[in-house]
Amino acid sequence: MKKFSIETYQGRRTKLKQKMGSGILLFLGNEESSSNFKDNWYPFRQDSSFLYFFGLDMPGLAAIIDIDQDLEIIFGDNLTTEELIWQGAHPPLSELAQEIGVKLTKSKNELPKFLEKNTKQKIHFLPPYRPENRQKLAEWLSISYSEIPSQASVAFIKAVVALRSIKTDEEIREINKAVNISVSMHKKAMKEAQPGMKEYQLLGLVNGEALAMGGHLSFPPIITIDGQILHNHNYSNTLIPGKMLLGDFGAESAMRYAGDITRTFPVGPEFSSSQKEIYQIVFQAYQTAVAALRPGIRFKDVHLLACRKLAEGLKELGLMKGNLDDAVDKGAHALFFQCGLGHMMGLDVHDMEDLGEEYVGYTDEFKKSKLFGLKSLRLGKELESGYVITIEPGIYFIPQLIDQWQSENLHSEYINYEKLAQYRNFGGIRVEDGYLITDLGSQILGDPLEIEIADVERIRRK
Amino acid sequence: MKKFSIETYQGRRTKLKQKMGSGILLFLGNEESSSNFKDNWYPFRQDSSFLYFFGLDMPGLAAIIDIDQDLEIIFGDNLTTEELIWQGAHPPLSELAQEIGVKLTKSKNELPKFLEKNTKQKIHFLPPYRPENRQKLAEWLSISYSEIPSQASVAFIKAVVALRSIKTDEEIREINKAVNISVSMHKKAMKEAQPGMKEYQLLGLVNGEALAMGGHLSFPPIITIDGQILHNHNYSNTLIPGKMLLGDFGAESAMRYAGDITRTFPVGPEFSSSQKEIYQIVFQAYQTAVAALRPGIRFKDVHLLACRKLAEGLKELGLMKGNLDDAVDKGAHALFFQCGLGHMMGLDVHDMEDLGEEYVGYTDEFKKSKLFGLKSLRLGKELESGYVITIEPGIYFIPQLIDQWQSENLHSEYINYEKLAQYRNFGGIRVEDGYLITDLGSQILGDPLEIEIADVERIRRK
Repeated sequence: MKKFSIETYQGRRTKLKQKMGSGILLFLGNEESSSNFKDNWYPFRQDSSFLYFFGLDMPGLAAIIDIDQDLEIIFGDNLTTEELIWQGAHPPLSELAQEIGVKLTKSKNELPKFLEKNTKQKIHFLPPYRPENRQKLAEWLSISYSEIPSQASVAFIKAVVALRSIKTDEEIREINKAVNISVSMHKKAMKEAQPGMKEYQLLGLVNGEALAMGGHLSFPPIITIDGQILHNHNYSNTLIPGKMLLGDFGAESAMRYAGDITRTFPVGPEFSSSQKEIYQIVFQAYQTAVAALRPGIRFKDVHLLACRKLAEGLKELGLMKGNLDDAVDKGAHALFFQCGLGHMMGLDVHDMEDLGEEYVGYTDEFKKSKLFGLKSLRLGKELESGYVITIEPGIYFIPQLIDQWQSENLHSEYINYEKLAQYRNFGGIRVEDGYLITDLGSQILGDPLEIEIADVERIRRK
Repeated sequence: MKKFSIETYQGRRTKLKQKMGSGILLFLGNEESSSNFKDNWYPFRQDSSFLYFFGLDMPGLAAIIDIDQDLEIIFGDNLTTEELIWQGAHPPLSELAQEIGVKLTKSKNELPKFLEKNTKQKIHFLPPYRPENRQKLAEWLSISYSEIPSQASVAFIKAVVALRSIKTDEEIREINKAVNISVSMHKKAMKEAQPGMKEYQLLGLVNGEALAMGGHLSFPPIITIDGQILHNHNYSNTLIPGKMLLGDFGAESAMRYAGDITRTFPVGPEFSSSQKEIYQIVFQAYQTAVAALRPGIRFKDVHLLACRKLAEGLKELGLMKGNLDDAVDKGAHALFFQCGLGHMMGLDVHDMEDLGEEYVGYTDEFKKSKLFGLKSLRLGKELESGYVITIEPGIYFIPQLIDQWQSENLHSEYINYEKLAQYRNFGGIRVEDGYLITDLGSQILGDPLEIEIADVERIRRK
């Protein structure tokens, strides 16, 4: 189990205590997760906030920080003698706790008793996303299961978000490792994809590469010749020359920091001329967005700059028309780019998504738009030095959406539906990289990975 | 989504209804399972009994069979228009339901109402192993969360076990596919393992191979140079010449039937002479067990035959001594073979483990032994034609267990602790294949995979 230094975890907890001021902070680690019977487990994934403050990447733990009594306790149980025989020797929990600066450990059974005894203090907990942890909270705190999400502590959420949003140098190094595994996965796919292969063969290649490099998948890969299906986790298609392969996947490092990269490449050795045209528009939007990254700019404005660039390109092709400022204002471009430009990345690929988009990507004063397109933008607020984000513009021709808009004659002032008919079966293109916001602007994460048309084709021709 | 014919599912449900006679049978399909935030999902795995009776391999479904009213309903929801845009076109649930012979579909919301309306009938449910399904049952049936497991229907469990235990020809074909993917995974590991590699590199290779062949892992792989650690899911060791690599892993077919194979091979090109001696004992126990397989024999007796064979070999080596019948009776051999000889295999790798070992592996009259060794034997009862089982004997030198027994002077009549000291760091050896019980005896599943010493070394030398 790789960990940061004791000072890192102590420092994080000290800052958290300062931000919160008082009360009991309750952290639930994750349990093993069952697939088709209790003991057939999915790969264990620790809760990211638990990892951030306590660094212990193993199931069955919980922790409290009692700010008022200046107490930190990790709750968990050592292996029994019989378990030791089956699972081999493991260091005792007390030893592991000391390595992250926690002096006191207790059995798991002690946690509900501890909470019962301390009813006068406010008990803060984060919103649970796993049903077993929600059930535990309901039982221990005598709150109904359905009420639990609304009882999560907003102060606690905000304090955690404030800390986890700003990545330190040692975190950046970890994220770079994750991105570099992700780069290797993409190189593998780009080199080995061949007409006639099944998408799942590429899934095997890239998943195998992540594991062989000591990583894990950071999210369910998208590997598809139907790039216009944005949430596509089907891998059953055959790679057909003339089509493009959209690969959106990445790895976690051994310490569970995430990488997330997208590339789109031709199944054959070259893009068609119309594929090149659309690709180039997407790439220019990517470049425009990257050039705009700096502390102080709202990410929503970066998103809109990219949208405007996409719209310009689409107008040149004759797919959009009219006043583009108005078109983007009204959301007409969202027929082609239905989602957001990017998201925070860290211990989660959508960093802190469990804590709520309204806290991670927006503020009390600056709320998310409800407009189609913008409502899918996970991050809108001002960027700060130390944020790690993704930039992932795309153009997607979604037949169902085109039909729906056209039937309503939606935004027909800005969209050339007649010309658009030629693109109905085009598919989708996206490119994506991770960036660190620095004092001066931004910095790409990880080793270089081919993104320009000529470079991508060079690999595909080999 | 691959499925059997409509007649298969109708036939299975008809038999189930006949066995049960009356009441409402409630089937909960599985939901998506969250890793580190709600929408970051583990690969979806449908519940196996749901798959067996309804064949629909997608999240968010439930079903009832109301035997008294002769009603079958699948509960679930079609994609909304917005979801269609993001997820692409999917056939409506009513169409999918018709393909497996269910005429009626309703929204998920209707299920609790249906159960509320039918309070006079007995509602049978299977024991849930996922917390969200347990929570749903508690809510819908007004039973406390903690009481749910004890309220599962034993009659329903027994009826499902009776049906799922006997594999039909079309199921055997699917299991063969799963085993053949597993064989490919093992061939890959055996060919490509090299000194200096990390265990996780092999994990990447074999996991990648499973996915690339259109399969999934059927359980968390064991890939270790510490084969004596029986439940070892650590992959961080380096492959060292002189050590052996124990690989226990397998794949599910696209239709979710499982394969499960174990091989142990030298990290270098050849086994050492003492490794060969132990390997040969394990292999002879394997052969003895296989030769004994036939309908009507108790699997516990096959297990004991294998134990006796292991003990004979260990006596020849001077590690055991005395009267071997007595030694096996008393469980002295379990110092070296702590676990069971095998288990049922089907839609789950430990087939129907969620339904309870006492029903799957034993009977009301024939209960599991509490003796160390035998208490880990998942399957004890009489074999029947159509059972699919694994045969997986092994010899494991577990330092903690040796120390514990020696300090208690346990079974010193049968164990030569002095000689045993030489084997303290030997590790562990296991071999495993899947077998179908036939009218005449048994039949190995899947394509041949090297198991004899000379054949394994031939691959390793290449």
